[in-house]
Amino acid sequence: MARPRPISGFPEWLPSGRLVESHVVGTLRRVFAAHGFVEIETRAVEPLGELLRKGETSQEVYVLRRLQDADRQGYDSRTLGLHFDLTVPLARYVLENAGQLDFPFKRSQIQKVWRGERPQEGRFREFVQADLDVIGLAELPFHYEVELPLIMAEALAALQVGSFRVLVNNRKLAEGLMLGLGVEDVGAALGWVDKVDKIGADGLLTGLTEFGLDTARAQAVTQFAAIQAADAAALSAAVRQLTTSLSAEGLWDANRQGAGELLDQGLAELTALLDAAQRRVPGTVVAAMKIVRGLDYYTGSVYETVWLEQEDLGSVCSGGRYDSLAKQGDITYPGVGLSIGVTRLISRILALGLLRPNRISPSVVVVAVLDEGDRAASDKVAAALRARGIAAETSPTAAKLGKQIRYADRLGVPFVWFPGVEGEADQVKDIRSGDQTVADAATWAPPPADLQIQFTAQTDAAGAEN
Amino acid sequence: MARPRPISGFPEWLPSGRLVESHVVGTLRRVFAAHGFVEIETRAVEPLGELLRKGETSQEVYVLRRLQDADRQGYDSRTLGLHFDLTVPLARYVLENAGQLDFPFKRSQIQKVWRGERPQEGRFREFVQADLDVIGLAELPFHYEVELPLIMAEALAALQVGSFRVLVNNRKLAEGLMLGLGVEDVGAALGWVDKVDKIGADGLLTGLTEFGLDTARAQAVTQFAAIQAADAAALSAAVRQLTTSLSAEGLWDANRQGAGELLDQGLAELTALLDAAQRRVPGTVVAAMKIVRGLDYYTGSVYETVWLEQEDLGSVCSGGRYDSLAKQGDITYPGVGLSIGVTRLISRILALGLLRPNRISPSVVVVAVLDEGDRAASDKVAAALRARGIAAETSPTAAKLGKQIRYADRLGVPFVWFPGVEGEADQVKDIRSGDQTVADAATWAPPPADLQIQFTAQTDAAGAEN
Repeated sequence: MARPRPISGFPEWLPSGRLVESHVVGTLRRVFAAHGFVEIETRAVEPLGELLRKGETSQEVYVLRRLQDADRQGYDSRTLGLHFDLTVPLARYVLENAGQLDFPFKRSQIQKVWRGERPQEGRFREFVQADLDVIGLAELPFHYEVELPLIMAEALAALQVGSFRVLVNNRKLAEGLMLGLGVEDVGAALGWVDKVDKIGADGLLTGLTEFGLDTARAQAVTQFAAIQAADAAALSAAVRQLTTSLSAEGLWDANRQGAGELLDQGLAELTALLDAAQRRVPGTVVAAMKIVRGLDYYTGSVYETVWLEQEDLGSVCSGGRYDSLAKQGDITYPGVGLSIGVTRLISRILALGLLRPNRISPSVVVVAVLDEGDRAASDKVAAALRARGIAAETSPTAAKLGKQIRYADRLGVPFVWFPGVEGEADQVKDIRSGDQTVADAATWAPPPADLQIQFTAQTDAAGAEN
Repeated sequence: MARPRPISGFPEWLPSGRLVESHVVGTLRRVFAAHGFVEIETRAVEPLGELLRKGETSQEVYVLRRLQDADRQGYDSRTLGLHFDLTVPLARYVLENAGQLDFPFKRSQIQKVWRGERPQEGRFREFVQADLDVIGLAELPFHYEVELPLIMAEALAALQVGSFRVLVNNRKLAEGLMLGLGVEDVGAALGWVDKVDKIGADGLLTGLTEFGLDTARAQAVTQFAAIQAADAAALSAAVRQLTTSLSAEGLWDANRQGAGELLDQGLAELTALLDAAQRRVPGTVVAAMKIVRGLDYYTGSVYETVWLEQEDLGSVCSGGRYDSLAKQGDITYPGVGLSIGVTRLISRILALGLLRPNRISPSVVVVAVLDEGDRAASDKVAAALRARGIAAETSPTAAKLGKQIRYADRLGVPFVWFPGVEGEADQVKDIRSGDQTVADAATWAPPPADLQIQFTAQTDAAGAEN
């Protein structure tokens, strides 16, 4: 058959790339567990009716059909589709199992998701997300809105591939500003703000004007969208200054539809978040009024995360607070959560060689085979090493020793073991240094750093690989 | 919305069940790595043409369709489907990346697969497989046929949920017998042998007769299928005795189509496998002539694995040797591999409570919050513990201490930490024993066994739980 070719949007890695992916996922998982998050997995499919409830991503769903149903047309709400995120499955999982879960339910989930997009450069159609959410039963304390982005910042920092900045805002603050300005369709206006990084301040101004705002109000929104501050006092000052001057011009009214109260509440929450971040991870969290997140279901804090050395990637970790992830009868489940686009991270890390494993094989030792008839003796050495926690394999063949050493070398395995012949002692060779010593499989140990594959991390590009 | 209900065939676990799944997968992964296997993951989809090449499972493929293509009918070979095993993707991955892989390529792969079967009791449509294969370039030494089932036996034993017996046979031996008997359609005859556990010896006899064998030959095959031996000498004796007596009756001819030579070669390989198994894991491997594996592509050793305490589950780990996993031009890639049905194992383990985690949360400590205004102090204690590798979280609320302790208790978290007030020292309480002591977050450590979630394993049923 012809040599198969990759399918656009469905990334796969060579063994060295998969090692990096496992390392990244393992690091995230370790940080999530250290903070007491319980890991779940959900099935890959949901009923189509469930997937389309929010409407937003209807164009991106992959629908499943059994092969023998090829001629069937159309779908119904029970047709199965692949999940396109881990939030819809979480909402369904919480409702399905509410009676057996403990709330607040702190859950992590790292899984593949699929989006049936048209293939295009840089868009993944199969990718891994790493989600962290806390779900409350009827209520959820605000402090989780502070904790979650800080845990994500810690997890991303633990990768050691660069610096990450969490941009935060609060929907109440943004909505309060809009209501005070008399904007009728607040969601649509925020949708324009959400685009400012793509269209620029001028584009935003034009967009808002075409959307129906007068020039003065469009300018006010554009000014608002430009506010950034790492410091609570600076943020408060900037927002207060804007609303005060807008009030003086008669453009903003704190009493219109409770605008002032909503804005105050949002500002209080956002400054509390900045204060805590300043204490715990100084310099990592910045308030940015342009961050509003398109999705309607966010009701409090919203987050996006920029990888400073790779800003062109866009947000690598986003999320926010939602008052009603799910609802059943009178019971609502509020939540706060963020999601890391793991595949997007890995893809860049591999392209730039930011994390490099020091070997491909988990083996610490390849035990040489001097004669195929003596394989059992070599197997015995390997088993003795494994029993003591030292990964070891026996050489594929009893080829010349040079060839057996090259087998180990190609995989980066640091040691080759030579069983002793005719009563002689075994010897082990460090093939990096060439040092060879007498050794006993019952007692020999490699340097501790050789027991596991090690990764070299760097934060700037050093040539592509994989 | 109404409470969602599970979808038949798409299993999901509660957090405690997911812990068991992670533990099982982690154990398998650890054993695979200890033997030097390199882990890969492949995308979930393959072109339909690739999935249907073998023809065997064409009825079970889930085909993907983008939502907006709802009205499209029919498929072509480039239509994407979900993989139904990990062997087809491996073959494709090896061909696609052959120039960048090291051979023999020892790979492990643990991933979900999907089968579009009609929903029925006990059948999974989404499940996890754990595969181990060694792929050679043009040639693959026989010793891997010995090693792989032993590694799988070691991995299954490491789960500590019972005893596993690997049943082995060799296609050459079985085919040699058939050829010597003059059976024309050897594959079809072996297909009948493959069914003997379901239809019994009488059913096999009837089936073979209807299929076209004379009574004497049908009896010979039935006798052959009944041979089992854990010991190389006993196996050789039984097979030799059968062929000798069949030859004497004029039913079997060693010279017919090279039957004798093929049978000898198969017997030599199988006895070598039994000898090695006897040395390394006595009592685990048994030769059984009824094991022939339905699939045509096996050409040497074949394996099935029975969980002795749960025999009704059928084989939980199967596979074999294939001379041509993939082929490109003149180059063939022979291999040997086995696949564990992980979800089937987990499902039974959970149903019988054979593995039980001692807590749900990874947290070792819940740090109490005495007053919501003091949360920062509690956060600081938790951060200090985490910095020293002790998973810790801060209490959800500053509720009464009894309620905070109950929060920890419900999740099985062993310790609750009380920050000292007004200059007093902190204290930590083991909520299992009630012991409470003065402690310093910079130095305190729990008993080592409390650092990670522990699993209690047992081999017999003790009531269901999930």
